[in-house]
Amino acid sequence: MVGLGPGDAGLLAPMARRAIERARVVVGYGTYLDLVPRELLAGKDVIETGMTGEVERCERAMAEALAGRDTVVVSGGDAGVYGMAGLVLEMLAARGCVGEVEFSVIPGIAALLGAAALLGAPLTHDFASVSLSDLLTPWEVIERRVDLAAQADFVLVLYNPRSKRRAGHLAKAVETIGKWRGPDTPVGVVRRAYRPGQEVFVTSLAGFDPGCADMLTIVIVGNSATRTAGTWMLTPRGYGRKYRL
Amino acid sequence: MVGLGPGDAGLLAPMARRAIERARVVVGYGTYLDLVPRELLAGKDVIETGMTGEVERCERAMAEALAGRDTVVVSGGDAGVYGMAGLVLEMLAARGCVGEVEFSVIPGIAALLGAAALLGAPLTHDFASVSLSDLLTPWEVIERRVDLAAQADFVLVLYNPRSKRRAGHLAKAVETIGKWRGPDTPVGVVRRAYRPGQEVFVTSLAGFDPGCADMLTIVIVGNSATRTAGTWMLTPRGYGRKYRL
Repeated sequence: MVGLGPGDAGLLAPMARRAIERARVVVGYGTYLDLVPRELLAGKDVIETGMTGEVERCERAMAEALAGRDTVVVSGGDAGVYGMAGLVLEMLAARGCVGEVEFSVIPGIAALLGAAALLGAPLTHDFASVSLSDLLTPWEVIERRVDLAAQADFVLVLYNPRSKRRAGHLAKAVETIGKWRGPDTPVGVVRRAYRPGQEVFVTSLAGFDPGCADMLTIVIVGNSATRTAGTWMLTPRGYGRKYRL
Repeated sequence: MVGLGPGDAGLLAPMARRAIERARVVVGYGTYLDLVPRELLAGKDVIETGMTGEVERCERAMAEALAGRDTVVVSGGDAGVYGMAGLVLEMLAARGCVGEVEFSVIPGIAALLGAAALLGAPLTHDFASVSLSDLLTPWEVIERRVDLAAQADFVLVLYNPRSKRRAGHLAKAVETIGKWRGPDTPVGVVRRAYRPGQEVFVTSLAGFDPGCADMLTIVIVGNSATRTAGTWMLTPRGYGRKYRL
Protein backbone atom coordinates (compact mmCIF):
# COMPACT_ATOMS: atom_id res chain seq x y z
CA MET A 1 0.00 0.00 0.00
CA VAL A 2 1.68 3.17 -1.18
CA GLY A 3 0.63 6.78 -0.58
CA LEU A 4 1.63 9.08 -3.44
CA GLY A 5 1.27 12.37 -1.55
CA PRO A 6 -0.64 15.32 -3.01
CA GLY A 7 0.53 14.72 -6.57
CA ASP A 8 3.76 16.66 -7.12
CA ALA A 9 6.68 14.26 -7.67
CA GLY A 10 8.65 16.40 -5.20
CA LEU A 11 6.32 15.18 -2.45
CA LEU A 12 6.59 11.47 -3.31
CA ALA A 13 8.75 9.81 -0.66
CA PRO A 14 11.81 7.92 -1.98
CA MET A 15 10.60 4.81 -0.11
CA ALA A 16 7.30 4.94 -2.00
CA ARG A 17 9.10 5.47 -5.30
CA ARG A 18 11.33 2.45 -4.65
CA ALA A 19 8.33 0.26 -3.80
CA ILE A 20 6.73 1.14 -7.13
CA GLU A 21 10.01 0.60 -8.98
CA ARG A 22 10.39 -2.83 -7.42
CA ALA A 23 6.79 -3.96 -8.04
CA ARG A 24 5.62 -6.14 -10.92
CA VAL A 25 2.00 -5.02 -10.65
CA VAL A 26 0.65 -1.53 -9.91
CA VAL A 27 -3.05 -1.19 -9.09
CA GLY A 28 -5.00 2.03 -8.72
CA TYR A 29 -7.81 4.36 -9.58
CA GLY A 30 -7.02 6.20 -12.84
CA THR A 31 -6.65 9.62 -11.24
CA TYR A 32 -4.08 8.27 -8.79
CA LEU A 33 -2.17 6.29 -11.42
CA ASP A 34 -1.83 9.59 -13.29
CA LEU A 35 0.11 10.93 -10.30
CA VAL A 36 2.75 8.20 -10.61
CA PRO A 37 5.80 9.42 -12.56
CA ARG A 38 5.46 7.76 -16.00
CA GLU A 39 8.91 6.21 -16.02
CA LEU A 40 8.06 4.19 -12.91
CA LEU A 41 5.25 2.32 -14.67
CA ALA A 42 7.23 1.21 -17.74
CA GLY A 43 7.22 -2.56 -18.18
CA LYS A 44 4.78 -3.22 -15.36
CA ASP A 45 1.32 -4.72 -15.31
CA VAL A 46 -0.88 -1.73 -14.58
CA ILE A 47 -4.42 -2.45 -13.37
CA GLU A 48 -6.67 0.58 -13.55
CA THR A 49 -10.18 0.67 -12.13
CA GLY A 50 -12.91 3.33 -11.94
CA MET A 51 -13.77 5.57 -9.03
CA THR A 52 -16.24 3.34 -7.24
CA GLY A 53 -14.26 0.24 -8.15
CA GLU A 54 -12.49 0.03 -4.79
CA VAL A 55 -13.64 -3.50 -4.01
CA GLU A 56 -12.69 -4.74 -7.49
CA ARG A 57 -9.33 -2.98 -7.19
CA CYS A 58 -8.54 -4.73 -3.92
CA GLU A 59 -9.80 -8.06 -5.25
CA ARG A 60 -7.44 -7.88 -8.19
CA ALA A 61 -4.50 -6.63 -6.15
CA MET A 62 -5.05 -9.44 -3.67
CA ALA A 63 -5.20 -12.07 -6.42
CA GLU A 64 -1.90 -10.81 -7.83
CA ALA A 65 -0.20 -10.77 -4.44
CA LEU A 66 -1.53 -14.24 -3.54
CA ALA A 67 -0.12 -15.48 -6.86
CA GLY A 68 3.28 -14.34 -5.62
CA ARG A 69 3.67 -11.17 -7.64
CA ASP A 70 5.03 -8.05 -5.93
CA THR A 71 2.00 -5.77 -6.06
CA VAL A 72 1.58 -2.12 -5.15
CA VAL A 73 -1.79 -0.44 -4.61
CA VAL A 74 -1.42 3.32 -4.97
CA SER A 75 -3.56 5.91 -3.18
CA GLY A 76 -3.45 9.69 -3.36
CA GLY A 77 -2.11 11.32 -0.19
CA ASP A 78 -1.61 8.64 2.46
CA ALA A 79 -2.84 5.09 1.81
CA GLY A 80 -4.24 4.90 5.34
CA VAL A 81 -6.19 8.18 5.59
CA TYR A 82 -9.52 7.42 3.89
CA GLY A 83 -7.29 5.35 1.57
CA MET A 84 -7.16 1.77 0.41
CA ALA A 85 -5.03 0.27 3.20
CA GLY A 86 -8.06 -0.48 5.36
CA LEU A 87 -10.10 -2.13 2.64
CA VAL A 88 -7.24 -4.39 1.52
CA LEU A 89 -6.64 -5.46 5.11
CA GLU A 90 -10.38 -6.00 5.63
CA MET A 91 -10.63 -8.17 2.53
CA LEU A 92 -7.52 -10.15 3.39
CA ALA A 93 -9.05 -10.79 6.82
CA ALA A 94 -12.45 -11.75 5.34
CA ARG A 95 -10.69 -14.42 3.28
CA GLY A 96 -8.37 -15.58 6.04
CA CYS A 97 -5.34 -14.49 4.00
CA VAL A 98 -3.75 -11.91 6.31
CA GLY A 99 -0.75 -14.11 7.02
CA GLU A 100 -0.39 -15.32 3.42
CA VAL A 101 0.89 -12.10 1.89
CA GLU A 102 3.59 -9.74 3.08
CA PHE A 103 1.35 -6.72 3.70
CA SER A 104 2.88 -3.32 4.34
CA VAL A 105 1.94 0.33 4.19
CA ILE A 106 4.32 3.11 3.13
CA PRO A 107 3.08 6.41 4.50
CA GLY A 108 2.59 9.45 2.30
CA ILE A 109 1.90 13.15 2.73
CA ALA A 110 -1.86 13.10 3.34
CA ALA A 111 -4.08 15.64 1.57
CA LEU A 112 -4.73 17.43 4.86
CA LEU A 113 -1.01 18.10 5.29
CA GLY A 114 -0.62 19.40 1.75
CA ALA A 115 -3.58 21.72 2.24
CA ALA A 116 -2.35 22.89 5.64
CA ALA A 117 1.13 23.71 4.31
CA LEU A 118 -0.32 25.85 1.53
CA LEU A 119 -2.53 27.71 4.02
CA GLY A 120 0.31 28.44 6.47
CA ALA A 121 -0.07 26.79 9.87
CA PRO A 122 -3.72 25.91 10.58
CA LEU A 123 -2.93 22.53 12.21
CA THR A 124 -0.44 23.60 14.85
CA HIS A 125 -2.89 22.53 17.54
CA ASP A 126 -5.33 19.63 18.07
CA PHE A 127 -7.45 18.84 15.04
CA ALA A 128 -10.14 16.44 13.86
CA SER A 129 -10.60 15.10 10.37
CA VAL A 130 -14.10 14.28 9.11
CA SER A 131 -15.16 13.03 5.68
CA LEU A 132 -18.51 14.49 4.63
CA SER A 133 -19.17 11.63 2.22
CA ASP A 134 -22.16 9.56 3.33
CA LEU A 135 -21.58 6.77 0.80
CA LEU A 136 -20.32 4.51 3.60
CA THR A 137 -21.21 6.42 6.79
CA PRO A 138 -24.70 7.58 7.82
CA TRP A 139 -25.08 11.36 7.68
CA GLU A 140 -26.24 11.46 11.32
CA VAL A 141 -22.89 10.02 12.45
CA ILE A 142 -21.01 12.56 10.34
CA GLU A 143 -23.02 15.50 11.62
CA ARG A 144 -22.62 14.39 15.22
CA ARG A 145 -18.85 14.17 14.77
CA VAL A 146 -18.71 17.66 13.27
CA ASP A 147 -20.84 18.99 16.11
CA LEU A 148 -18.81 17.42 18.94
CA ALA A 149 -15.46 18.28 17.31
CA ALA A 150 -16.55 21.91 16.97
CA GLN A 151 -17.78 21.90 20.57
CA ALA A 152 -14.38 20.56 21.69
CA ASP A 153 -12.66 23.42 19.86
CA PHE A 154 -10.72 21.19 17.48
CA VAL A 155 -9.51 22.66 14.22
CA LEU A 156 -11.73 20.82 11.71
CA VAL A 157 -10.48 19.27 8.48
CA LEU A 158 -13.28 18.40 6.06
CA TYR A 159 -12.53 15.74 3.44
CA ASN A 160 -14.84 15.07 0.46
CA PRO A 161 -16.71 18.27 1.33
CA ARG A 162 -19.11 18.39 -1.58
CA SER A 163 -20.25 16.27 -4.50
CA LYS A 164 -23.08 16.93 -6.93
CA ARG A 165 -25.19 14.22 -5.34
CA ARG A 166 -24.88 15.73 -1.85
CA ALA A 167 -24.42 19.40 -2.51
CA GLY A 168 -26.03 20.39 0.80
CA HIS A 169 -23.76 18.55 3.26
CA LEU A 170 -21.04 21.16 3.41
CA ALA A 171 -23.49 23.98 4.10
CA LYS A 172 -25.04 21.91 6.90
CA ALA A 173 -21.62 21.12 8.38
CA VAL A 174 -20.61 24.77 8.32
CA GLU A 175 -23.90 25.73 9.96
CA THR A 176 -23.28 23.17 12.70
CA ILE A 177 -19.76 24.50 13.28
CA GLY A 178 -21.25 28.01 13.44
CA LYS A 179 -23.10 27.05 16.62
CA TRP A 180 -19.72 26.91 18.38
CA ARG A 181 -17.50 29.36 16.49
CA GLY A 182 -17.62 33.06 15.74
CA PRO A 183 -18.44 34.36 12.24
CA ASP A 184 -14.86 35.64 11.84
CA THR A 185 -13.31 32.19 12.33
CA PRO A 186 -10.88 31.66 9.44
CA VAL A 187 -11.75 28.97 6.91
CA GLY A 188 -9.04 27.73 4.55
CA VAL A 189 -9.95 26.27 1.18
CA VAL A 190 -7.47 24.31 -0.93
CA ARG A 191 -8.31 22.69 -4.24
CA ARG A 192 -5.96 20.54 -6.30
CA ALA A 193 -3.04 21.05 -3.88
CA TYR A 194 0.34 20.87 -5.63
CA ARG A 195 -1.34 20.05 -8.95
CA PRO A 196 -2.06 22.13 -12.05
CA GLY A 197 -4.98 24.43 -11.36
CA GLN A 198 -4.21 24.71 -7.63
CA GLU A 199 -6.45 27.15 -5.72
CA VAL A 200 -5.76 28.35 -2.16
CA PHE A 201 -7.61 30.98 -0.18
CA VAL A 202 -8.66 31.91 3.33
CA THR A 203 -12.12 33.28 4.08
CA SER A 204 -14.29 33.42 7.21
CA LEU A 205 -17.07 31.21 8.49
CA ALA A 206 -19.61 33.96 7.71
CA GLY A 207 -18.15 34.61 4.27
CA PHE A 208 -17.70 30.98 3.27
CA ASP A 209 -19.53 29.86 0.11
CA PRO A 210 -19.97 26.07 0.06
CA GLY A 211 -20.28 26.29 -3.72
CA CYS A 212 -16.51 26.84 -3.97
CA ALA A 213 -15.75 23.27 -2.93
CA ASP A 214 -15.82 19.94 -4.73
CA MET A 215 -14.39 16.46 -4.18
CA LEU A 216 -10.85 17.69 -4.93
CA THR A 217 -11.08 20.30 -2.16
CA ILE A 218 -9.97 20.21 1.47
CA VAL A 219 -11.68 22.69 3.81
CA ILE A 220 -10.03 23.59 7.13
CA VAL A 221 -12.05 25.49 9.74
CA GLY A 222 -10.02 27.10 12.51
CA ASN A 223 -10.48 26.69 16.26
CA SER A 224 -11.43 29.61 18.51
CA ALA A 225 -7.83 30.93 18.53
CA THR A 226 -7.13 30.59 14.79
CA ARG A 227 -6.47 33.86 13.00
CA THR A 228 -4.91 35.19 9.85
CA ALA A 229 -1.38 36.57 9.50
CA GLY A 230 -1.17 38.39 6.21
CA THR A 231 -2.68 35.96 3.71
CA TRP A 232 -1.83 32.98 5.93
CA MET A 233 -3.99 30.97 8.32
CA LEU A 234 -2.48 30.47 11.77
CA THR A 235 -3.55 28.40 14.77
CA PRO A 236 -1.32 29.47 17.68
CA ARG A 237 -0.06 26.65 19.85
CA GLY A 238 -0.11 28.82 22.95
CA TYR A 239 3.41 30.28 23.09
CA GLY A 240 1.91 33.75 23.00
CA ARG A 241 0.20 33.17 26.35
CA LYS A 242 3.34 31.77 27.95
CA TYR A 243 6.10 33.91 26.47
CA ARG A 244 6.40 37.47 25.36
CA LEU A 245 6.70 37.10 21.58
CA MET B 1 9.57 25.53 7.28
CA VAL B 2 10.49 21.97 6.42
CA GLY B 3 9.05 18.73 7.79
CA LEU B 4 11.57 15.91 7.85
CA GLY B 5 9.11 13.04 8.21
CA PRO B 6 9.55 10.31 10.82
CA GLY B 7 13.33 10.17 10.46
CA ASP B 8 14.20 7.62 7.77
CA ALA B 9 15.78 9.36 4.75
CA GLY B 10 13.44 7.25 2.58
CA LEU B 11 10.53 9.26 3.97
CA LEU B 12 12.09 12.69 3.40
CA ALA B 13 10.30 14.30 0.45
CA PRO B 14 12.54 15.40 -2.44
CA MET B 15 11.06 18.91 -2.19
CA ALA B 16 12.15 19.12 1.47
CA ARG B 17 15.61 17.80 0.60
CA ARG B 18 16.01 20.42 -2.13
CA ALA B 19 14.95 23.21 0.24
CA ILE B 20 17.65 22.17 2.70
CA GLU B 21 20.23 21.85 -0.09
CA ARG B 22 19.42 25.34 -1.32
CA ALA B 23 19.46 27.00 2.12
CA ARG B 24 22.38 28.92 3.63
CA VAL B 25 21.15 28.51 7.20
CA VAL B 26 19.50 25.48 8.83
CA VAL B 27 17.87 25.92 12.22
CA GLY B 28 16.51 23.21 14.45
CA TYR B 29 16.32 21.32 17.70
CA GLY B 30 19.28 18.94 17.98
CA THR B 31 17.20 15.76 17.74
CA TYR B 32 15.64 16.95 14.48
CA LEU B 33 18.93 18.17 13.01
CA ASP B 34 20.21 14.63 13.60
CA LEU B 35 17.51 13.39 11.21
CA VAL B 36 18.87 15.52 8.37
CA PRO B 37 21.16 13.50 6.09
CA ARG B 38 24.69 14.67 6.99
CA GLU B 39 25.73 15.57 3.45
CA LEU B 40 22.94 18.14 3.25
CA LEU B 41 24.38 20.21 6.10
CA ALA B 42 27.93 20.50 4.76
CA GLY B 43 29.05 24.10 4.33
CA LYS B 44 25.93 25.60 5.92
CA ASP B 45 25.42 27.68 9.01
CA VAL B 46 23.70 25.28 11.40
CA ILE B 47 21.92 26.80 14.39
CA GLU B 48 21.07 24.23 17.03
CA THR B 49 18.92 24.98 20.07
CA GLY B 50 17.69 22.92 23.03
CA MET B 51 14.29 21.29 23.51
CA THR B 52 12.46 24.19 25.11
CA GLY B 53 14.32 26.72 22.98
CA GLU B 54 11.50 27.08 20.42
CA VAL B 55 11.16 30.83 20.83
CA GLU B 56 14.92 31.37 20.59
CA ARG B 57 15.04 29.09 17.53
CA CYS B 58 12.39 31.13 15.74
CA GLU B 59 14.00 34.39 16.80
CA ARG B 60 17.31 33.37 15.28
CA ALA B 61 15.74 31.92 12.13
CA MET B 62 13.73 35.11 11.65
CA ALA B 63 16.81 37.29 12.09
CA GLU B 64 18.65 35.26 9.44
CA ALA B 65 15.75 35.42 7.00
CA LEU B 66 15.22 39.15 7.55
CA ALA B 67 18.94 39.64 6.84
CA GLY B 68 18.28 38.12 3.43
CA ARG B 69 19.71 34.64 4.00
CA ASP B 70 17.80 31.60 2.72
CA THR B 71 16.86 29.91 6.00
CA VAL B 72 15.24 26.56 6.71
CA VAL B 73 13.70 25.63 10.05
CA VAL B 74 13.45 21.84 10.32
CA SER B 75 10.80 19.96 12.32
CA GLY B 76 10.33 16.24 12.79
CA GLY B 77 7.26 14.87 10.99
CA ASP B 78 5.32 17.76 9.47
CA ALA B 79 6.32 21.35 10.30
CA GLY B 80 2.67 22.28 10.76
CA VAL B 81 1.42 19.49 13.05
CA TYR B 82 2.48 20.60 16.54
CA GLY B 83 5.55 21.88 14.66
CA MET B 84 7.36 25.18 14.32
CA ALA B 85 5.41 26.65 11.38
CA GLY B 86 2.80 28.23 13.67
CA LEU B 87 5.28 29.81 16.04
CA VAL B 88 7.37 31.33 13.24
CA LEU B 89 4.24 32.79 11.64
CA GLU B 90 3.05 34.06 15.04
CA MET B 91 6.36 35.78 15.72
CA LEU B 92 6.55 37.26 12.22
CA ALA B 93 3.05 38.66 12.79
CA ALA B 94 3.92 39.99 16.27
CA ARG B 95 6.77 41.99 14.70
CA GLY B 96 4.80 43.08 11.63
CA CYS B 97 7.23 41.19 9.36
CA VAL B 98 4.89 38.70 7.65
CA GLY B 99 5.24 40.40 4.29
CA GLU B 100 8.98 41.00 4.63
CA VAL B 101 10.15 37.42 4.24
CA GLU B 102 9.15 34.81 1.69
CA PHE B 103 7.54 32.36 4.12
CA SER B 104 6.62 28.86 2.98
CA VAL B 105 5.91 25.45 4.46
CA ILE B 106 6.95 22.17 2.84
CA PRO B 107 4.76 19.39 4.18
CA GLY B 108 6.21 16.19 5.60
CA ILE B 109 4.99 12.78 6.70
CA ALA B 110 3.61 13.61 10.16
CA ALA B 111 4.37 11.28 13.07
CA LEU B 112 0.75 10.13 13.17
CA LEU B 113 1.01 8.86 9.59
CA GLY B 114 4.27 7.02 10.25
CA ALA B 115 2.73 5.37 13.30
CA ALA B 116 -0.49 4.50 11.47
CA ALA B 117 1.38 2.88 8.57
CA LEU B 118 3.37 0.67 10.94
CA LEU B 119 0.17 -0.39 12.73
CA GLY B 120 -1.73 -1.26 9.52
CA ALA B 121 -4.76 0.91 8.83
CA PRO B 122 -6.07 2.51 12.03
CA LEU B 123 -6.86 5.90 10.41
CA THR B 124 -9.05 4.79 7.53
CA HIS B 125 -11.95 6.66 9.09
CA ASP B 126 -12.47 10.00 10.87
CA PHE B 127 -9.86 10.71 13.53
CA ALA B 128 -8.87 13.36 16.05
CA SER B 129 -5.37 14.25 17.13
CA VAL B 130 -4.75 15.48 20.69
CA SER B 131 -1.46 16.41 22.35
CA LEU B 132 -1.42 15.46 26.03
CA SER B 133 1.26 18.03 26.83
CA ASP B 134 -0.07 20.74 29.13
CA LEU B 135 2.99 22.98 28.79
CA LEU B 136 0.98 25.36 26.58
CA THR B 137 -2.62 24.11 26.94
CA PRO B 138 -4.58 23.76 30.21
CA TRP B 139 -5.20 20.12 31.13
CA GLU B 140 -8.96 20.77 31.41
CA VAL B 141 -9.07 21.72 27.72
CA ILE B 142 -7.11 18.61 26.77
CA GLU B 143 -9.29 16.30 28.84
CA ARG B 144 -12.46 17.82 27.42
CA ARG B 145 -11.18 17.28 23.87
CA VAL B 146 -10.35 13.66 24.59
CA ASP B 147 -13.78 13.16 26.15
CA LEU B 148 -15.78 14.71 23.30
CA ALA B 149 -13.66 13.03 20.60
CA ALA B 150 -14.22 9.66 22.24
CA GLN B 151 -17.94 10.38 22.55
CA ALA B 152 -18.04 11.26 18.82
CA ASP B 153 -16.43 7.89 18.03
CA PHE B 154 -13.32 9.37 16.43
CA VAL B 155 -10.20 7.26 16.25
CA LEU B 156 -7.93 9.08 18.72
CA VAL B 157 -4.29 9.89 18.08
CA LEU B 158 -2.41 10.90 21.22
CA TYR B 159 0.76 12.98 20.75
CA ASN B 160 3.26 13.62 23.57
CA PRO B 161 1.44 10.99 25.62
CA ARG B 162 3.69 10.89 28.64
CA SER B 163 6.64 12.73 30.12
CA LYS B 164 8.25 12.28 33.53
CA ARG B 165 6.76 15.51 34.79
CA ARG B 166 3.20 14.50 33.89
CA ALA B 167 3.27 10.74 34.13
CA GLY B 168 -0.42 10.53 35.02
CA HIS B 169 -1.98 12.26 31.99
CA LEU B 170 -2.00 9.25 29.70
CA ALA B 171 -3.69 7.05 32.31
CA LYS B 172 -6.36 9.74 32.82
CA ALA B 173 -6.91 10.11 29.06
CA VAL B 174 -7.29 6.36 28.63
CA GLU B 175 -9.73 6.25 31.54
CA THR B 176 -11.77 9.03 29.90
CA ILE B 177 -11.83 7.18 26.59
CA GLY B 178 -12.93 4.06 28.47
CA LYS B 179 -16.22 5.78 29.37
CA TRP B 180 -17.15 5.55 25.67
CA ARG B 181 -15.29 2.50 24.34
CA GLY B 182 -15.28 -1.18 25.14
CA PRO B 183 -12.34 -2.79 26.96
CA ASP B 184 -11.42 -4.74 23.82
CA THR B 185 -10.92 -1.58 21.71
CA PRO B 186 -7.53 -1.95 20.01
CA VAL B 187 -4.80 0.46 21.06
CA GLY B 188 -1.73 0.83 18.87
CA VAL B 189 1.57 1.94 20.32
CA VAL B 190 4.48 3.09 18.17
CA ARG B 191 7.77 4.33 19.55
CA ARG B 192 10.63 5.72 17.48
CA ALA B 193 8.85 5.02 14.16
CA TYR B 194 11.29 4.35 11.30
CA ARG B 195 14.25 4.99 13.60
CA PRO B 196 16.71 2.66 15.32
CA GLY B 197 15.00 1.03 18.29
CA GLN B 198 11.54 1.15 16.70
CA GLU B 199 8.78 -0.53 18.74
CA VAL B 200 5.29 -1.33 17.40
CA PHE B 201 2.53 -3.27 19.09
CA VAL B 202 -1.24 -3.48 19.38
CA THR B 203 -2.95 -4.07 22.70
CA SER B 204 -6.45 -3.35 24.07
CA LEU B 205 -7.87 -0.51 26.12
CA ALA B 206 -8.16 -2.85 29.12
CA GLY B 207 -4.65 -4.24 28.63
CA PHE B 208 -2.94 -0.94 27.94
CA ASP B 209 -0.11 0.02 30.28
CA PRO B 210 0.54 3.79 30.18
CA GLY B 211 4.06 3.08 31.42
CA CYS B 212 5.00 1.84 27.93
CA ALA B 213 4.82 5.34 26.44
CA ASP B 214 7.13 8.31 26.47
CA MET B 215 7.54 11.53 24.46
CA LEU B 216 8.80 9.57 21.42
CA THR B 217 5.62 7.48 21.36
CA ILE B 218 2.38 7.89 19.40
CA VAL B 219 -0.67 6.11 20.84
CA ILE B 220 -3.67 5.42 18.59
CA VAL B 221 -6.96 4.30 20.19
CA GLY B 222 -9.48 2.78 17.78
CA ASN B 223 -13.10 3.79 17.26
CA SER B 224 -16.00 1.44 18.05
CA ALA B 225 -15.47 -0.48 14.81
CA THR B 226 -11.68 -0.80 14.97
CA ARG B 227 -10.43 -4.37 15.22
CA THR B 228 -7.32 -6.41 14.68
CA ALA B 229 -6.47 -8.42 11.59
CA GLY B 230 -3.60 -10.72 12.44
CA THR B 231 -1.08 -8.44 14.13
CA TRP B 232 -2.49 -5.37 12.35
CA MET B 233 -4.87 -2.68 13.57
CA LEU B 234 -7.77 -1.98 11.22
CA THR B 235 -10.51 0.66 11.22
CA PRO B 236 -13.02 -0.36 8.53
CA ARG B 237 -14.32 2.47 6.38
CA GLY B 238 -17.70 0.81 6.00
CA TYR B 239 -17.35 -1.22 2.80
CA GLY B 240 -18.20 -4.33 4.76
CA ARG B 241 -21.70 -3.00 5.51
CA LYS B 242 -22.29 -1.96 1.91
CA TYR B 243 -20.67 -4.76 -0.10
CA ARG B 244 -20.19 -8.45 0.39
CA LEU B 245 -16.44 -8.68 0.99
